[in-house]
Amino acid sequence: MLTSAQRARLTVVLVGARNPGNIGAAARAMQDFGFSDLRVVNEFAAPFEAAQIEAAASLEAKSAVAAGSVMRNARRFDALAEAIADCTLVVGTTAVGEREMKMPVDPLRQTAGEMLATLGDERHEKDAAGRVALLFGSEKTGLTNEQLSHCNRLTTVPMYAPQGTTPDGKPARHLSMNLGQSVAVCLYELTREGFEGARELPVLHEAPATADDRERLTQLLLDAMQATGYTRRYPQNASEPLVRQLAMQLGTSHREAMTWMGVLKQVLWREKTESGE
Amino acid sequence: MLTSAQRARLTVVLVGARNPGNIGAAARAMQDFGFSDLRVVNEFAAPFEAAQIEAAASLEAKSAVAAGSVMRNARRFDALAEAIADCTLVVGTTAVGEREMKMPVDPLRQTAGEMLATLGDERHEKDAAGRVALLFGSEKTGLTNEQLSHCNRLTTVPMYAPQGTTPDGKPARHLSMNLGQSVAVCLYELTREGFEGARELPVLHEAPATADDRERLTQLLLDAMQATGYTRRYPQNASEPLVRQLAMQLGTSHREAMTWMGVLKQVLWREKTESGE
Repeated sequence: MLTSAQRARLTVVLVGARNPGNIGAAARAMQDFGFSDLRVVNEFAAPFEAAQIEAAASLEAKSAVAAGSVMRNARRFDALAEAIADCTLVVGTTAVGEREMKMPVDPLRQTAGEMLATLGDERHEKDAAGRVALLFGSEKTGLTNEQLSHCNRLTTVPMYAPQGTTPDGKPARHLSMNLGQSVAVCLYELTREGFEGARELPVLHEAPATADDRERLTQLLLDAMQATGYTRRYPQNASEPLVRQLAMQLGTSHREAMTWMGVLKQVLWREKTESGE
Repeated sequence: MLTSAQRARLTVVLVGARNPGNIGAAARAMQDFGFSDLRVVNEFAAPFEAAQIEAAASLEAKSAVAAGSVMRNARRFDALAEAIADCTLVVGTTAVGEREMKMPVDPLRQTAGEMLATLGDERHEKDAAGRVALLFGSEKTGLTNEQLSHCNRLTTVPMYAPQGTTPDGKPARHLSMNLGQSVAVCLYELTREGFEGARELPVLHEAPATADDRERLTQLLLDAMQATGYTRRYPQNASEPLVRQLAMQLGTSHREAMTWMGVLKQVLWREKTESGE
């Protein structure tokens, strides 16, 4: 269970992202999971500024406090070293493509465990240390070897390796994951066990069906099969144990079981009336 | 561990998606995790056809077997009932927003367990039954109550519930998750424990550093501290146990430990040479 204070110590760093739409998508994923510290490393200010303008516009149009607030508070840095200077654990994401890796790459669920341990380490709470950086590379190249060398850990989302060759005979190459999707998946892994401030699941006010409900249904169903002549035509389907198994599946709530009883009583009433005519 | 045959029995159904880019993003997420059966429910053919044209263009441009193949094989249906007719377990995704829910909504990690159990049920392998449908609603409204009523189970990705009010005094409203990100997160949850056909993590050929490496480093570091006069100036930092702890962190691989030994030997050699001059 990630607390709000722990969540505030995670920094998402986008390195060299070029597409303002992708920067915005990463910010939106952060909002969805309640993270707030976004840093963008890019020597050119244009994509970052375009993403901020877009977020401001959506903020105005949709009157939502949350939408766009991550992007509005995001910061741009010229160099990676500056962006991660105050971070303790620096985790780089990589697609494990054709490149040779100099460091071990662990699957996301394993690295997330260490990230959560660092974020949850109470010995850091007082001095606001223990900040964790999660790095994502550019859409085109991912993190370069130079950028990866700033990381304590490398992690990857396990992805499908396509087999075979392309129509022009080259070996099948897999594209890396979309930037916004990659951020969403990583933040989901960090919060999937639940987190402070998450939306609550709706409470169900429906009482579940009881064994007594099901037994009354079984008897009504047997009566209805008898009255309509089904039992005579298909005796092999109308034994009490088989009918009890059918009734077992009628209605998971007491209300649904009562609806079924009403329907069966109506059938029985019509049978009685019609046969009486 | 999801096998390829099991993965082939999952169907992703996009209901009422309007934006071709979002349909393409969902298809790309499916490719990333090795799923292949995409069905789009939409009475209008335009968004679906636009997404197919876009996928075909990217297929041509990037010469990748995998890219676009999901979209190329996708099918469009006029009605939801048709699209899910052959499915055993039908799971609807919902953002658990302001709407009142008539059915229980379980967190994704819980529902994924049941989906995996159905996909992995060997009793279905022969008759190709046990197909699981995972439904996503339109970008604007999500799945409607009518659409949700076609589902056996409802699931949600736990998301952050923003607090407070908007600048104009309305209670903060959270937007639902981006469609492509939502598909990516759900498919990640199904494959996070590993799956047949996943990219392999790179093998490390580096031998790890041994205790002997570290002990030799400790002695060299003590010698270098002595030779350079550090021990005399900061004796409190130069005790053997403290220096051993410093050396413990020098180099996780044998190669890195050897590099450090070389550096320290060079320092010692220079000290000796210079003091001899």
